[in-house]
Amino acid sequence: MNGNGLAPDTRTHLIRAFERIVGPEGVISSPDELRVYDCDALTFFHRCPPDVVVLPTSTSQVAEIVRRCYEFGVPFLPRGAGTGLSGGATPRAGGVMIVLTRMTRILDLDLANRMATVEAGCVNLWLTKAVECHGLFYAPDPASQAACTIGGNVAENAGGPHCLKYGVTTNHVLGATVVLPDGEVVRLGGKVSDSPGCDLLGVFTGAEGTLGICTEVTVRLLPQPEAVKTILAIFRTIEDACSAVSGVIARGIIPVAMEMLDRETITAVEANVKAGYPLDAGAVLLIELDGPRGEIEAEAVGVEAVCREQGCLDVRVAQTEEERALLWKGRKEAAGSFGRIAHHYYLQDAVVPRTKLAQVLREIEEIGARYRVKIANVAHAGDGNVHPMICVDRDVPGCEERAIQAGSEIMRRCIELGGTVTGEHGIGLEKREYLRLMYSPADLAVMHRVRGVFDPAGLCNPGKIFPDEDGPAGAEHSARHASAVSAG
Amino acid sequence: MNGNGLAPDTRTHLIRAFERIVGPEGVISSPDELRVYDCDALTFFHRCPPDVVVLPTSTSQVAEIVRRCYEFGVPFLPRGAGTGLSGGATPRAGGVMIVLTRMTRILDLDLANRMATVEAGCVNLWLTKAVECHGLFYAPDPASQAACTIGGNVAENAGGPHCLKYGVTTNHVLGATVVLPDGEVVRLGGKVSDSPGCDLLGVFTGAEGTLGICTEVTVRLLPQPEAVKTILAIFRTIEDACSAVSGVIARGIIPVAMEMLDRETITAVEANVKAGYPLDAGAVLLIELDGPRGEIEAEAVGVEAVCREQGCLDVRVAQTEEERALLWKGRKEAAGSFGRIAHHYYLQDAVVPRTKLAQVLREIEEIGARYRVKIANVAHAGDGNVHPMICVDRDVPGCEERAIQAGSEIMRRCIELGGTVTGEHGIGLEKREYLRLMYSPADLAVMHRVRGVFDPAGLCNPGKIFPDEDGPAGAEHSARHASAVSAG
Repeated sequence: MNGNGLAPDTRTHLIRAFERIVGPEGVISSPDELRVYDCDALTFFHRCPPDVVVLPTSTSQVAEIVRRCYEFGVPFLPRGAGTGLSGGATPRAGGVMIVLTRMTRILDLDLANRMATVEAGCVNLWLTKAVECHGLFYAPDPASQAACTIGGNVAENAGGPHCLKYGVTTNHVLGATVVLPDGEVVRLGGKVSDSPGCDLLGVFTGAEGTLGICTEVTVRLLPQPEAVKTILAIFRTIEDACSAVSGVIARGIIPVAMEMLDRETITAVEANVKAGYPLDAGAVLLIELDGPRGEIEAEAVGVEAVCREQGCLDVRVAQTEEERALLWKGRKEAAGSFGRIAHHYYLQDAVVPRTKLAQVLREIEEIGARYRVKIANVAHAGDGNVHPMICVDRDVPGCEERAIQAGSEIMRRCIELGGTVTGEHGIGLEKREYLRLMYSPADLAVMHRVRGVFDPAGLCNPGKIFPDEDGPAGAEHSARHASAVSAG
Repeated sequence: MNGNGLAPDTRTHLIRAFERIVGPEGVISSPDELRVYDCDALTFFHRCPPDVVVLPTSTSQVAEIVRRCYEFGVPFLPRGAGTGLSGGATPRAGGVMIVLTRMTRILDLDLANRMATVEAGCVNLWLTKAVECHGLFYAPDPASQAACTIGGNVAENAGGPHCLKYGVTTNHVLGATVVLPDGEVVRLGGKVSDSPGCDLLGVFTGAEGTLGICTEVTVRLLPQPEAVKTILAIFRTIEDACSAVSGVIARGIIPVAMEMLDRETITAVEANVKAGYPLDAGAVLLIELDGPRGEIEAEAVGVEAVCREQGCLDVRVAQTEEERALLWKGRKEAAGSFGRIAHHYYLQDAVVPRTKLAQVLREIEEIGARYRVKIANVAHAGDGNVHPMICVDRDVPGCEERAIQAGSEIMRRCIELGGTVTGEHGIGLEKREYLRLMYSPADLAVMHRVRGVFDPAGLCNPGKIFPDEDGPAGAEHSARHASAVSAG
C-alpha cells in the first residue's frame, strides 16, 4: 500500500516546493526510504508509508509546508521519534509526513522562573540532561524517554512511572507554538500558569496531532529532590500487591512511582536483565520515594509497614545507586525482556480506578486463559494504569486474532469498571472504536466539532481518534474482522 | 435597565413552564426580587437584572429549563453564590438566570479513591468540612470559600492562597455533568485521571459558564498534611520581599502559600483586624508550609535563611493555632479592611512571571501616583498573581474614571511583562477588551469557534469573555469612555 493515490503531478509539484523550503536534503521521496516511516511503534493492524517525508528546521518552514498541503488539499501528519504505541504517527492513507527530528534545540532556559522552551523535536531525556547541572529536571518520563521527543509527548500527553507524583505531560506544559492546519502560527498558553479564555493549550495537549503541529514547547522544570529511596516489595499474590498499593496511598504517602510486575514478567526480566527480582514471587512492587531525606525515611517506614500488613514476603531497599539502577533496569526493560520470550506481543494500555486494580488483573488472567494466550502484566499500579502484554505466536494459526480479541475484551472490562482505554499511549488508529463504548454520540460529536474548529478541511492527521473519520482501522476493527474470519 | 426586552407573552409563558418544572417556589419574577441578581461581586461597570430567576434542584430540571430557553431562543446564564469578581454571573442583557444554590448535596464520597461527587451548588468549604473527619480536604480555597460554590469555582477555574502548592480548580476536577446549551446532558471526564480524545473537561473548566451549565462535579480530595507551619516575614521594602519569594522557590521549597501585603494594606488590616502585622514594615510575607513534621521544620529553616539573606527585619513563626488563625485572618480580611478605609475600591487581578513581581509592583505604585489614586496591594506572590486594590472616592469628580484608567494601564503592563490579565477572577464582562492585547485575532477566532461548538445559538451566558460578542462592556470600554469624557 502506498499513499492516498496522490496524483503524480501533485506529488512532483509538492516535492519541488518542499525542496525549495527545506533544501533537497530535507525531503525523502524514494519508496525504499519511505518504508521506514510506514508505522510507528504500533506495528500491528496497519502500515502505510507517506507519499513524501519533509524534515523542516524551523517553525516558519513547518508553516510553509503546511500551507502548501492546505492549498493542494493534501493530508499531512506530524511525527517525532515514532515511538508512539497507538499509530498516531502512522499515516492513515499516505499524504505528507512532517518529521520534526531536526528541530532539537533548547531555545531558552529561564532558570529563575524554572522553565525551558524547546523545539518540538528535542528528545525528552536531553532536556533533563541539559538542566541537571542546575539542580533541575523535566518530570514526565515515558519508558521511551531516551528517544521520544517532547513534541510527541505533547501530542500523546505522555506519562511514565514518575507521573504518579508529578502528573503527566499536560501538567508540565505552559505554552506551545502551534502551526494550525491552514498554516497560521499561533501561540497557546504562556509563561504564567493561567491563560484566560478557552484552555486551547489543554485541548491541544493529547489531541494526537489532529489539531495542528506543535513546533515549540515551554515546559515547567522541577528541582531535583534532596534524596531518593527505591524499595522492592515482594508479594505472594497480585491481590496482596494491589492491596499494598491502595494502602500506601490511603496512608497519605504519594510515592514518585509505584510499579507492579507480575510473575510472568518477573520470569522474563530475570532471564534477560537479572535485576534481582525473586522468581518465586507472585508479584513485586517497585516503589520509589523522593523528597527531603528526613521525610522519605519516615515514608519508607510507612511503606514497609503497609506492605507487611498486606502479607508481603520481603521488603528490600536499594542501598547504592547501582542497586537502584538495576531495580529500574528490570522495570524499564520489562517489555523488551518479554519480547525476547514472546517474539511478538501486543502491548495494551488501559486505566481503572486504583481500587479495581486487583479485580481487573484477575480478569485479565481469566481472559488470557479463555483465549489461550499468555498475558504478562506490568502496571503503573499507583495510577491504576495497566499494561498487559499479550503474547502472539505468529506460527500458530489464529493466535494473532485471539490476542486481538483478548485485548479487546480487556478494554471492554476496563471501561465497565469505570476506567478508560488509554492511560498514556493514546487512541491513534488502534482504539478508535472503543471510544463509542466510553462516550455517547453527543459527546463524540462535540469533540469532533472541536477538531473541526482547528481543522475544518480535515487534513491534519486524518483518521485518528474519531471512530467515524475516514473508515475503520485498528484493533477493534481487526478483532471484528478476526471474528468474521474465524466464524467463516 | 431590565432584561433584554423579552416579549411579555414569552416571559409569561416561560414563567409558567418553569413553575411546572421546579414548582412556584423555585421561580423569581418580581422586579424587586430580581434586583438582588443584577450583579455579582463586580459592582462596577454594568448592572442588569435577569428577566426571571429559576432555582432547580436536579440535573434533569436544569436540562428542562435550558430546553425551554433553547426552544424560545432566550439567553440564559448559570449562577452559584454570585461571589465572582468579573461579572461572569451578571446578565449581559437580561434573560433567564439559573441559580444552582438549591443543588447542594454531596452525592458520593469515594474515600478509597479519594474523590467526592457534589452538586454544583455545594459550597466550597462544606466539602472540606464534610471530609475532614476522614483526614481529607479539598484544596482550592478562594477567599470566598465560605460562600462560593464548587460549580462556580469550576466556571471561573478558581484559585486561592493555597494553590501555590496544590494548583487551581482545574487540577482537582476529575469529571463534570454538564447540561449543554441545547439541553442535552453530557458527562465530561471520569473517575480516572486520563480521558482520551479532546480534553473537553479542561476546556469547560474556566470557560465562565459560556459552554453549558455544570450540575455535578467529581473532585479529587487530598490527605490533610501531618503538620502546618505559618511564618510572618517582615521586610523594609517590597523589593526585598519579592526577592525572598523568588529565593524560596529557587531553593527548592514550595510553600503551600506565599502571600504578600504592602504597607497600605497592612495599615488597613491593623486598623480593622489587629493581626499583629508591624505598621512600620514596607511589606510582609505570610508563608505557610505543610507536610511531614520533619520536612517542614527543615523547610522553615530554609525559608528563614532566605528571608534573612534578603535583609528581612524579622521572622515570626506562629506558635499556636490561635496565632496562625490570626495571621490568616489579617490576610483573608485584607480586602474588606481596605474597603473600610476606601469605601469603594476596584479590586484587580493579574499575573506576571514571578521574577517580574517587584518590577510590576513598583510600576503599579507609579501608575497610582500618575492617576492620583491610592493603590494597596495584596498578592499571591508565589504565583506572581497581584491584586491591586484601587481606591475610589465617588465624591471626587473624575476619581472613578481615573481608577479605571489606572486599572487599565496596570493590565497593559502585566501583559507587556509576559503575564495575563487574570489569575483567578476570569474575564467576564470586565476584561473582554484586554484579550485583544493578549491574543491575535486568529487565536480569538479559534476560541470563539470552540464556544460555537458547544453553543451554536449563542444563548448560554452571552456577551462574556469574547470582545466581539454582543457589544462592548467592562473596564476597557469604561476606560475609553472615561478618556473620551475627560478629553471632551
